[in-house]
Order: sequence, then C-alpha cells, then structure tokens
Amino acid sequence: MATAGKIIKCKAAVAWEPNKPLVIEEIEVAPPQANEIRIKIVSTGVCHTDLYHLFEGMHKDGFPAVLGHEGAGIVESVGPGVTEFQSGDKVIPLFISQCRECRFCKSSKTNQCDKGWAVDRHDVMASPETRFTCRGKKVLQFMGTSTFSEYTVVNTIAVAKIDPAAPLDKVCLLGCGVCTGFGAAVNTAKVEPGSTCAVFGLGAVGLAAVMGCKSAGAKRIIAVDINPEKFEKAKVFGATEFVNPKDHSKPISQVLAEMTDGGVDYSLECVGNVAVMRSALESCVKGWGVSVLVGWTDMHDFAARPIQLISGRTWKGSLFGGFKSKDGVPDMVKAYLEKKVKLDEFITHTMTLDQVNDAIDLMKHGKCIRTVLSVSPQ
Amino acid sequence: MATAGKIIKCKAAVAWEPNKPLVIEEIEVAPPQANEIRIKIVSTGVCHTDLYHLFEGMHKDGFPAVLGHEGAGIVESVGPGVTEFQSGDKVIPLFISQCRECRFCKSSKTNQCDKGWAVDRHDVMASPETRFTCRGKKVLQFMGTSTFSEYTVVNTIAVAKIDPAAPLDKVCLLGCGVCTGFGAAVNTAKVEPGSTCAVFGLGAVGLAAVMGCKSAGAKRIIAVDINPEKFEKAKVFGATEFVNPKDHSKPISQVLAEMTDGGVDYSLECVGNVAVMRSALESCVKGWGVSVLVGWTDMHDFAARPIQLISGRTWKGSLFGGFKSKDGVPDMVKAYLEKKVKLDEFITHTMTLDQVNDAIDLMKHGKCIRTVLSVSPQ
Repeated sequence: MATAGKIIKCKAAVAWEPNKPLVIEEIEVAPPQANEIRIKIVSTGVCHTDLYHLFEGMHKDGFPAVLGHEGAGIVESVGPGVTEFQSGDKVIPLFISQCRECRFCKSSKTNQCDKGWAVDRHDVMASPETRFTCRGKKVLQFMGTSTFSEYTVVNTIAVAKIDPAAPLDKVCLLGCGVCTGFGAAVNTAKVEPGSTCAVFGLGAVGLAAVMGCKSAGAKRIIAVDINPEKFEKAKVFGATEFVNPKDHSKPISQVLAEMTDGGVDYSLECVGNVAVMRSALESCVKGWGVSVLVGWTDMHDFAARPIQLISGRTWKGSLFGGFKSKDGVPDMVKAYLEKKVKLDEFITHTMTLDQVNDAIDLMKHGKCIRTVLSVSPQ
Repeated sequence: MATAGKIIKCKAAVAWEPNKPLVIEEIEVAPPQANEIRIKIVSTGVCHTDLYHLFEGMHKDGFPAVLGHEGAGIVESVGPGVTEFQSGDKVIPLFISQCRECRFCKSSKTNQCDKGWAVDRHDVMASPETRFTCRGKKVLQFMGTSTFSEYTVVNTIAVAKIDPAAPLDKVCLLGCGVCTGFGAAVNTAKVEPGSTCAVFGLGAVGLAAVMGCKSAGAKRIIAVDINPEKFEKAKVFGATEFVNPKDHSKPISQVLAEMTDGGVDYSLECVGNVAVMRSALESCVKGWGVSVLVGWTDMHDFAARPIQLISGRTWKGSLFGGFKSKDGVPDMVKAYLEKKVKLDEFITHTMTLDQVNDAIDLMKHGKCIRTVLSVSPQ
C-alpha cells in the first residue's frame, strides 16, 4: 500500500473531555511498530462501555481519547517482523488480548491475558502508549482499539483474523456485545440443556445472552426488562417468557421464584447495576443456582446476604463472554456465516461516523439495540 | 429398652433467653414418632453456631431451646415403622437432612434438602415441632438436633448410622465443624493438586479447611489469623505459611497477592465476618480464583466491587462442607478410623455437660479449638 510506513491523516471522533459530545477531527495515525498492525476500520458498533467511559467512568487521565471498541476492518499495513497478518486481511480488533504465552492464556479456565492494555489500567481504560495524535496532542486509544477512527493501530495479540467472506458491517458486533452476552451464557454460566434461565436487561448484551441460553438448550428463558418494548425482540432471540418488574409490587426475585418453583437455574445480569446484580442472584434457586455479572460497572459495591451463597448459589462474572479472544471471535464469525448465531437482528440503526453523537444519544435514551456506523468505504 | 415408648426425664442445658447462661434443667423427652428415633447423646462439641444463636442471631422466637448440634450417641428407641435404625446403633444427628427423595437430594450438585427443619426456618433455627418440654413449657430443638441433652429425638432423614468401632467422643466433631471446613475445600472449592490456598480464620472449621486443602493436594496453604497462637496448630493440619494481618499495614489481600504472584487459587473464609469475606475474595487471583464463604453469619451484607468477579473470580458458599449428610458423615467416620483425617488434634478441652457455660466462655474468648462435653455415659 502506498500509505505503508507513513503517517496517515484521517478522520476520527475524539473525546476531548468527559460529558461532552465527541468531535470529528483529523488525526495522525503513526505506522505500526514491531508486533503491531494498522487497520482501516470499515464498521463499528456503539456499545454502552463507550458511554460508560464518556459519561460515568470519567477518569480525567482517560482523555483525550478515541472511543469505540466494537469494530471490524481491513489490514492496511503491518509492523516490522509481523507475519501473522498481511495487508488486505479482514480483522476484528479485540479489547481483550490473547498472547498465548502468559499463564492465563495457557490455562483453559480463563480468557484473561497478562499482556494487554487492561493490566492494571482499568481506571483509565487505555495504555499510556498510543499511535494517535491530534492538534499536536497525544490522544489515547480507548481499550486498545479505538474504532471511531478511519485508521487505528493495534497489537497483534489483540486482533483476530476472520473469514474473508464475513460482512464487516455485521460481524463488527462480535468485537464486544454479542460475544459478551452469548459467551456469558455458554462459557461462564455453562447453561445446561433443559434448564431455566433469567436474563436481566435486554440491550444487545442481554439479547445475546438470551441467544446463548437458547443455543445451550435452555427450556425456559425468562426475559426481564423495565421497557416492555424490548420483549418482541427478545422473542426473536429465543426468550420464552417476559417479566416487567414495574408490573409487580413484589421483589422481582420473588416473582421469578413463584414462576419457577424456587428460582431459576441460571441468571445473567446484563445491565451493569448493582441492585439488579443482587436481584439476579436472589432469583436463583438454592443448591445450584448460578448468577453471572455481565453488565459493566465498577463504581459501587455489589452485595447480598451470606446465606444466598451458603445455601448453594454461585456468583460469577464474565468479561467478553469468557471467550479467548483470538480463538473465539473467528469461531463466532464462522457460526454467523453458518447461520448458527444471529447478528443482523441486533442492528436497529445504521449511520456514518459523522453521526456518532446521534448514535450515542440513541443508546443513552434506550432507543436502539445497536447502531452500526460505517467508518471507511471497503 | 425399658424406656422405649415412655417419656424420658433427663438432664439438658436449656437456653431460656438470649444472652444468658444456659441452665441445667430436667426436661421431658417424648418418645419418637413415625420416622423418628430417640438418641442417648454420649458426647457433643460446642460450635460457634451455638454461640451465634445465643448471642448474635437472637431471634426471640428461637427460645427457649436446647442448643448443641455437633454430637454423637446411641439409639435408645425407634418410632413406629422405623427399620433403618435399631436400639444400640451408633449415630450422629445431622443439622442438614438428606431425604433422598427431593429434587435437591436427587441432584449431585448440592447437599441441600427440601425436607429438614431448615426450610424457611433460618430466622428461628428450629422447627416449630419439638419433643422437648421443661417446666410445662415447649422447648425448641435447635437445628433439629439439640445435643446439649442426655436424650434427643431426631427425624431419620437427619441422622447418620456410623461404624460401631467409632469413638463417640471424637467423631462427634464430624457432626458440624470438621465436615464443614474439610468439605468446603474438597467439595465446594474443589481444590486442585498443586494449587495455592489461603484459609482465613483458624478455629476448628478453618483448621479442618486447612486439612481439606492438604488432603486435596494443595502445594501451598497459607493460614491467616489475627491470633498467632493458632499457627502452631495449623501446621499440624498442613499449613505451610502463616500470616497475621496485624503484622502488616497493607491490606491482607495485597500481602497475599505479593506472596503468590497475583493471588491464591482458592480462599476459604472460616470466620463469619463480612469484611473478611471481602478480603478473602480479593486475595484470589483473577481469571480462576475461587473464594468460598464457610463461616456463618447472616446479619450483614457481604460486598465487593463488580470487577472482582468480572475479571474471573468465583464466589461460592458452603453449608456442611457440601457433604450430603447421611452419605458423607459415615464416610468421614471411616476416613478417621483409617487415619486419613485427624480429629483428636482439634480437641483442646474435655468437660461435662454441667460445665457447658465454661465451654461457651472458652469459645467466646478464642481460648479453645474444640471442647468436647461428655453428656451421658456409654
């Protein structure tokens, strides 16, 4: 490529400070260094974690930054010595790395990796190193990805090469939300055939969790949301029953216990709210109920009474659905191409990168499941 | 027996009200009814759960009661139709039942049972039904057992027949503390060979957890207690390292993380303190760390930050060490007779039932591991 080895000037949405709209700017993207590749981002989803950082997490050292972590694109150029990727490969950048060498990568029990940006950087949600500058200032790469930019640079341990047949404007959703929810059911909760599940929160992650429960063979999948407009969509992904906590004066855990003779086998919290986390645990049956934290929040404690666990429930958490990222994402792309998982049904809006603030508003007000932004032409 | 079918008048320690010493009284013990047996209690341990009820739990409807739930004895007589037991059998009463018929008993995932006293009676910790009266008043049977009495009546789903060779003044400890701690490591945490464990609190339950970790093949067993006098004893049961939180200005989770390159594989909370529960979780390594609540308390919430679970830790709880009670206790008796588990080493004091208040004082002030009371002559 003519651009290889050179700085690329391109368009990106820059978050200059917390609580302010993103600004479309021209940024400079440095060439990839050793173990890095530069990617032309074709499409990106807008995920709640972007909003969390912008409006809630708001660590001042996390700005300026280019947000976006649910994208897909095409390799523009590779850094010195990189042989795993080449220009033209279709790829999905990964906010959770898989170095294949650390003790976590070598264990089958976890998808944590000791080498990515995330190690001890959860406060800022970015590595101090970046390949971006704008108006002479260093701009951080949110979650090591930054897909709200026409070009980005990522480490090869944090990018998955995918099937060339994959439509990037759909499979970008596998970069975060869909893998997160689906995997939380399949990999973390390990939902068993014939079981009863409850999914709290029917955004993209929750709907993907519903799909995961169904894929794992759950018999009953109870979809819980305070917005009943989401129930129709949940049905598409496999939900069998629908509960709006606002329709009940009793605690939702009691409502579910009555529906299920004591509680569900698995519950998945896909909201990121500590009160809902408690309800989700309390909705599980004693003895073997498993509740999984899937929604992201880290500003408050989650809590419950000890008897909830002592009587046999298990509380777990899931990051990126427990998928080892470089292995899992290409598999999920394949599953989509083979029509074993749905993606199109998550997409309620399509826009361009210039409209990113409109997409953020839609999400903030719960008016969309997923908006996909087209970033660069293929 | 000459007493079969008749009311037995015998000695028992009655808790008339919260926060008061027990009173040695003559009580009447009714004959066993269908599915019940009457047991002459030979020996009983004094466990912290007795104190919890007396001094902390203190639900006013839980009195008067006969406490004690860690005993062993000999069947005096059986109720109509009972064929599983006969007069003279050595038995251990069980505070957790195993009916073998409910959905919990039929599942291999849990030792909960839907038929015992405990179902929805955690507030009072006794069934409203009792075979005890004293001075014309109904006296409750704490946890369905009441081993601080020369005679007690229990349901056959809540009593284990044990090897006739078993010394009752030792195996009584298998009625609660030792099974609770040992099983929490072996059955609930499922400690793996070569792993690193931390046990918080070195009372009988904690020491039994240390023994469980060792039995499961743990390589490092870090014993944590604010009373360093307990470390010598912990060594006897297999602890390899010792940490007194009072020796450190840092949080104990940080001390353990530094000792273990990021945290332990398994931690067991054997205190019953919600702050320690949090420390125990935070002491686990991300990715696969498992923390188990073993100590009993239910007056406050336990809590942590969501990231602790989202980054791959699991929070579980254990009741009676996850042992299906009627199956597990005879197996543990056998393991003791085969010298595969230790019991004698837990016993620091022996007394008579008349001295029960002295035994309670010792426990209250952390001056003993276990006191065994001799209740009736064999």
